[in-house]
Amino acid sequence: MSNEGLSASPKAHRWDAIFSTECAARQPSIMQSLHLVLRDPNILSLGPGVAPRDLYPFDNISLRSKSGTDGENFWLESTKSESVQTGQDYDLSTALDYGQATGSPQLLSLVKDHVKTYHSPLYADWESVLTVGSTSALDIALRMFTERGDHIIVEEYTYPAVMETGRPLGVRFTDVKIDEQGAIPESLDELLGSWDEVHAGKRPRIIYLVPTGQNPTGATASPDRRRDIYRVAQKWDLYILEDDPYYFFQYEEPRHAGKTTKPVELAKTLLPSYLSMDTDGRVFRMDSLSKIIAPGLRMGWITVSEQVAERFVRVQETSVQNPSGLSQFAMFKLLQHWSHEGFTEWILRLQSTYLSKRDVLKTLIDTHLPSSVISYDQPRGGFFIWLRIDCTRHPQYHYKTPRQIEEEIYTKVIQQGALVLPGSWFQPDRGLERPDVFFRISFAPPTAAKMEEVMKRFDIALRICFGLNK
Amino acid sequence: MSNEGLSASPKAHRWDAIFSTECAARQPSIMQSLHLVLRDPNILSLGPGVAPRDLYPFDNISLRSKSGTDGENFWLESTKSESVQTGQDYDLSTALDYGQATGSPQLLSLVKDHVKTYHSPLYADWESVLTVGSTSALDIALRMFTERGDHIIVEEYTYPAVMETGRPLGVRFTDVKIDEQGAIPESLDELLGSWDEVHAGKRPRIIYLVPTGQNPTGATASPDRRRDIYRVAQKWDLYILEDDPYYFFQYEEPRHAGKTTKPVELAKTLLPSYLSMDTDGRVFRMDSLSKIIAPGLRMGWITVSEQVAERFVRVQETSVQNPSGLSQFAMFKLLQHWSHEGFTEWILRLQSTYLSKRDVLKTLIDTHLPSSVISYDQPRGGFFIWLRIDCTRHPQYHYKTPRQIEEEIYTKVIQQGALVLPGSWFQPDRGLERPDVFFRISFAPPTAAKMEEVMKRFDIALRICFGLNK
Repeated sequence: MSNEGLSASPKAHRWDAIFSTECAARQPSIMQSLHLVLRDPNILSLGPGVAPRDLYPFDNISLRSKSGTDGENFWLESTKSESVQTGQDYDLSTALDYGQATGSPQLLSLVKDHVKTYHSPLYADWESVLTVGSTSALDIALRMFTERGDHIIVEEYTYPAVMETGRPLGVRFTDVKIDEQGAIPESLDELLGSWDEVHAGKRPRIIYLVPTGQNPTGATASPDRRRDIYRVAQKWDLYILEDDPYYFFQYEEPRHAGKTTKPVELAKTLLPSYLSMDTDGRVFRMDSLSKIIAPGLRMGWITVSEQVAERFVRVQETSVQNPSGLSQFAMFKLLQHWSHEGFTEWILRLQSTYLSKRDVLKTLIDTHLPSSVISYDQPRGGFFIWLRIDCTRHPQYHYKTPRQIEEEIYTKVIQQGALVLPGSWFQPDRGLERPDVFFRISFAPPTAAKMEEVMKRFDIALRICFGLNK
Repeated sequence: MSNEGLSASPKAHRWDAIFSTECAARQPSIMQSLHLVLRDPNILSLGPGVAPRDLYPFDNISLRSKSGTDGENFWLESTKSESVQTGQDYDLSTALDYGQATGSPQLLSLVKDHVKTYHSPLYADWESVLTVGSTSALDIALRMFTERGDHIIVEEYTYPAVMETGRPLGVRFTDVKIDEQGAIPESLDELLGSWDEVHAGKRPRIIYLVPTGQNPTGATASPDRRRDIYRVAQKWDLYILEDDPYYFFQYEEPRHAGKTTKPVELAKTLLPSYLSMDTDGRVFRMDSLSKIIAPGLRMGWITVSEQVAERFVRVQETSVQNPSGLSQFAMFKLLQHWSHEGFTEWILRLQSTYLSKRDVLKTLIDTHLPSSVISYDQPRGGFFIWLRIDCTRHPQYHYKTPRQIEEEIYTKVIQQGALVLPGSWFQPDRGLERPDVFFRISFAPPTAAKMEEVMKRFDIALRICFGLNK
């Protein structure tokens, strides 16, 4: 640990009580014990069975990249070296070698600078570990923190991959009521306070939250909301899985007033993460490059207490090991070239692009869709508008369930040649009949023209279903 | 499935009986159901929350690569395109996008050609799936095929990561006797025939084997040995995890007589894999790029029956997803440029390089180490020489256990400034005292000069321990 200056901060709580049998049983790899020996320059090794570098078939990599301000393109380049790099650089040879299960020290060092800038953790012994993406990090977290039969708390509508990952592990999902800011603290407190261990099993110790631009509802929690949720988590000793891929896509207008390329200034305009208010090490924060750089890199990082990081690395060691060296190379060189200012410029570019896209979609919805039937809250973050359909206006409202109406609309929209996603797909328990009908609409990928065409087709489908005239 | 021409072959057995609870419970991701809809060009989608391609910060990648024959270097290059590629190419944009949990169809198609050439599976419904490396594939296999308390059969000395991966999952390891060809069929039959389910628990259904240049013993099984093991596996309905990273590093001299760059000719010189003799789909074959291309790519593939492939993909979907797009790009472009002949040339180059290295190490051992104390079988494959130490020659043989003698030698070698790995590190049960002392010596990475220096230092250490004069 080298989080200098923070050493006066308190240390994280210990989390042994929530480690699974699998997690608690993990031992360091015996080969790891060689690291110290192998680092000694006086020791000549015939230990590891690794190929010599001159037998890698690649000897130069060049990536043409760009900045957030549309300046000139630049090249990130490295030629293979024969000697092992021990310094601050991360070259092609290092990228092609076996790596460390924490991720490379060079890229991790940049990532930890980033974490300090944007989240300034309050406890001393925090660590970051590179992941092969948040989908993998979540799978590992569920392996670490759950036994078959355990309950995890999620929001009433949430990212389906969480259930798809957890169910095979025997995890059960319990949902907490939400409003336009996501999980409601009072409901969470009530849920835990009234938990009946005799009938429902062990009280949940884990909550999964997407605090910014939640998928699918687009909900973004205010600072007060986050603090209230964190306090309830402390009261019931809940451990928080904070999945925050849309962290940088926050669209509160005042926040955009004074644009800046200073990272600390940008950080001030962003809502505080759960990590940033975590005094106990009870937050397992997952960051992803999939939305801010590119999903094909299959890379992200977690930030957690040192104890949890060590357990996490034990899993990676005997499974995914580490992200592809080429992905690590690309990110290391890009961040090194950009520096913190360049990263900020890039983020501001994405932010304003997605803000415009959101506003285009809002205008199109308001222009094209029948206001008698649809409504929505303007999303303050993320990629999605969560459209509420008033199914009481459906001509067969008294004969059809909301789910049947949802299905009818979904099918009709596809017949019209468009795709939007039914809200029920995001229910933890898809079998549960809810009174409301929602559709998730993404404004991230499409062009304005495409969005307009989809809205026109959606409008036709809705008018057919609801028997409305234009 | 499109394994044309093989459709007359029998189909694989079904393996439901060995699927774990976790494995059997997996459901396809609901988002996967969109694939068909999204492929319809008439449907405009506001479904997935993916970033548009013009917001990826990379727009050209160039990798300088080489052939196996030291010809001119060549560049593998791609510029980002805005339109989605549906054809046979795999470009930078595709690399940066979300991918499929099977791996990209383009690279998979080349991999399946490779599998046909080298293993010609005998059953009709085989499939390959890209992995993020065999370490991950093994972790997934153990999740798929074991419940806590189950036994897996391994060889008396084996790759430690197998135990390190399995133990936290509650897997127990039972070892089968080995000789210079690895697992002994009669011993395997005897082990299973005398298995006492009342006291030992369920009879094992899984065996883990490294058939070529086994790690650590260097053992390579002959074709007859493999057929005998396969027959015992059929008799007891064992499922075989075939981990074969050293497949191409086979050093039988006659095999090298007629060098050829024709893949089918090279294939004929190689020992038959378990996959190649598998009529039942009972082999889970793991191939790795770590030894033949570069470990930093974190990529390999499995070849299994369609049923097992589907279950495997379900795990990847909610965990690692797929190898890095940059790794897939690099391999796709390299294989495309090389074609099968170029790949063969590359393999022949590696083969002859490692054969020379093995012979250098053999000569150095014979020259420098005290023949009164050490002996070894010439390895016919892989990266390792497995050195037997005759501990009856140790002056304190009657007062020290073999393990204490091993520890003394290991420490003394390090004091002399060299590293070789103690055999006991590779025991499934490290607590078990065996009568023999071994050291694993790798000839893969070092230069001849380095190997010689290590042998000199090893010699000094042995002479000190055994009280021998030069």
